[in-house]
Amino acid sequence: MSQGESAAHLAERVLALAGGATGVAGIEVTLAEPGRVHLAISRRDDLLQFRGYFHGGVISGLADLAGGGAVTTMLPPGRAVVTISLHVNFLAPAKGERLVAQGSVVKVGATVGVASVDLFTQEAAGEHLCATATVTYRVVGAA
Amino acid sequence: MSQGESAAHLAERVLALAGGATGVAGIEVTLAEPGRVHLAISRRDDLLQFRGYFHGGVISGLADLAGGGAVTTMLPPGRAVVTISLHVNFLAPAKGERLVAQGSVVKVGATVGVASVDLFTQEAAGEHLCATATVTYRVVGAA
Amino acid sequence: MSQGESAAHLAERVLALAGGATGVAGIEVTLAEPGRVHLAISRRDDLLQFRGYFHGGVISGLADLAGGGAVTTMLPPGRAVVTISLHVNFLAPAKGERLVAQGSVVKVGATVGVASVDLFTQEAAGEHLCATATVTYRVVGAA
Amino acid sequence: MSQGESAAHLAERVLALAGGATGVAGIEVTLAEPGRVHLAISRRDDLLQFRGYFHGGVISGLADLAGGGAVTTMLPPGRAVVTISLHVNFLAPAKGERLVAQGSVVKVGATVGVASVDLFTQEAAGEHLCATATVTYRVVGAA
Repeated sequence: MSQGESAAHLAERVLALAGGATGVAGIEVTLAEPGRVHLAISRRDDLLQFRGYFHGGVISGLADLAGGGAVTTMLPPGRAVVTISLHVNFLAPAKGERLVAQGSVVKVGATVGVASVDLFTQEAAGEHLCATATVTYRVVGAA
Repeated sequence: MSQGESAAHLAERVLALAGGATGVAGIEVTLAEPGRVHLAISRRDDLLQFRGYFHGGVISGLADLAGGGAVTTMLPPGRAVVTISLHVNFLAPAKGERLVAQGSVVKVGATVGVASVDLFTQEAAGEHLCATATVTYRVVGAA
Repeated sequence: MSQGESAAHLAERVLALAGGATGVAGIEVTLAEPGRVHLAISRRDDLLQFRGYFHGGVISGLADLAGGGAVTTMLPPGRAVVTISLHVNFLAPAKGERLVAQGSVVKVGATVGVASVDLFTQEAAGEHLCATATVTYRVVGAA
Repeated sequence: MSQGESAAHLAERVLALAGGATGVAGIEVTLAEPGRVHLAISRRDDLLQFRGYFHGGVISGLADLAGGGAVTTMLPPGRAVVTISLHVNFLAPAKGERLVAQGSVVKVGATVGVASVDLFTQEAAGEHLCATATVTYRVVGAA
C-alpha cells in the first residue's frame, strides 16, 4: 500500500467517526498519519458563542474527533473507538477565522486508548493556542 | 422581585451565555432556579454522530451551558462565567429523542465556580443517564 | 450470606486494593455497602502540605480508593479495578482533624466503571466539602 | 542574578510548596528552570499499592507538585499557586525503582495557570511513561 493510499484510508476512517453533526460543520482533515490527526473548521455563525468566539461545545467536539482519529490510526482494521472521558482546558478566547485541532496518541492498549489534542485558532495575525484536551477512548469492534 | 420574574431573569442570563451555536441548536431552559439550571434539546440530524446518537460535542456543549447557567444563578448582577475546564464522562450511547442536561452548583467562590451536570436521553421507553460532567469556571465581569 | 458478613467482605476487598501506602496511612473503612464506600483518615504531619492542610496527593489517593472500593462492591467475585483516569476538583482548603471520602458508583459496565467521590474535612466546628472527584476504572480479573 | 542562583532559587520555591508529606516522601528536584520542573522519588514500601507499584495517590501528588512548581517558576515574586483541578491518566503500571514527574507550563495568566506533567518509572531496563496529568492552578498571593 502506498503512503498516499494509506493517508487517504486513514482520513476516511476519521471522517467515518463523524456523522450529521460534523458533516454539517464542514470539518477538514488536514493531516492523517499513524498516531496523528489534524482537523480544521472555518468560522461560521452557528459555531460561535455570545462573544463571537468558537463555542466550547465546538472545541470539545473537534478535540474528541481529532483524538479519536489519532487513536484510530493505530488500530487494526475492524476496530473503532468510543469516548470514555473528555477533559478540556480552555486557555484563551477561541477567536479567529479557523479552529484547528491537532490530535496525537499518548497510548493505545488492547482496550483503552488515550490522546492529547492541542487546539489553535488561526487568523491573519497568527496562530494561538486556545485549548488543550486529553481524551480517553474504549477500543471496540467497528459497527 | 417576584419568584416568576426572578426565574425569567435567570433563564435570560443563561440564554445570554449562548449565541449562534445554541440559537441554531434550539436549546430550551426547562428549569432555572438558584443553583440549578436544566436545559433540553431535541434530536435533529445535525446533532448526531455516525451511529445516530447525540454527538460528544453536543453533549459537552450542553453540559458547559447548563453548568455555567447554574453557577451564573449564584452570582451578583454584572458577573458572568468563562469556562476554565470541562470534564465529561460518557456512560452510555446518547440515544433518544431529547437530550437533557441538569446542572447544579457544587461551589461558587469569588473567582472560581464549579458545577456538576447529569445528562439524560429521553425516549418513549424512559430516561437514561448518558453522561456526567464536572465543569470549572472563572468568574469575570460581564461584557 | 448475612448483611454483616457481606459488609465485612466488601470492606476487606476495599482494603485489599491498598498496600503499603494505605497501611501506613491508617485508612478506616467507615461504610461499605453495595455501590458505596466511605473511607476516613486522621490528620498526621506526614499527610499535610506547607499550609498545614491535607495534601492534594492524599486527597487524590483517598478519592481513588473510595471510588475504586465503591465500584468493586458491584463486581462479581474475581473481578477488580485498575484506575484509568482521576479527575479531582479542589474546592476549599482541606483543613481539619479528619479527611473523609464518600465514594458512590455512577455506572458499572462490563469493562469500565465510573465513581463519584465527595471529600470532606471534619473538625469540632463541623464538616466541610473540600473536594469532589470523578474516577474512571477498567474492570479486570483480580490478581 | 546568575543562572546557578536562579535555578537554586526556583528549586527552593518548588520545595516550599511541599510540607510534611513531601518531606517524608524524599522528593528530589532534578530540574528547575523557567517553565519546567522535574521531580523524582525513589521506591519505598509506603509509596506502593497492593501489586507493588507506585500508588495512584503518590503519582497524583507528585504530578500536582511538579506542575505547580513549573507554573511557580513563571510567577513574579510573592505569588504562589493553589490547585483548582487535577486530571491524571494512568497509562501503565507504575513499576520501577524511581518515579519521575516532568512538569511543564501550558499557560500562565493573571489568575489561572495550567501545567502538563509526564510521569515515568525508571528501572534498570529503561524508562516507561506510566501516567500523564493536566493540572489547573489558581494564582494567589504567597502566604
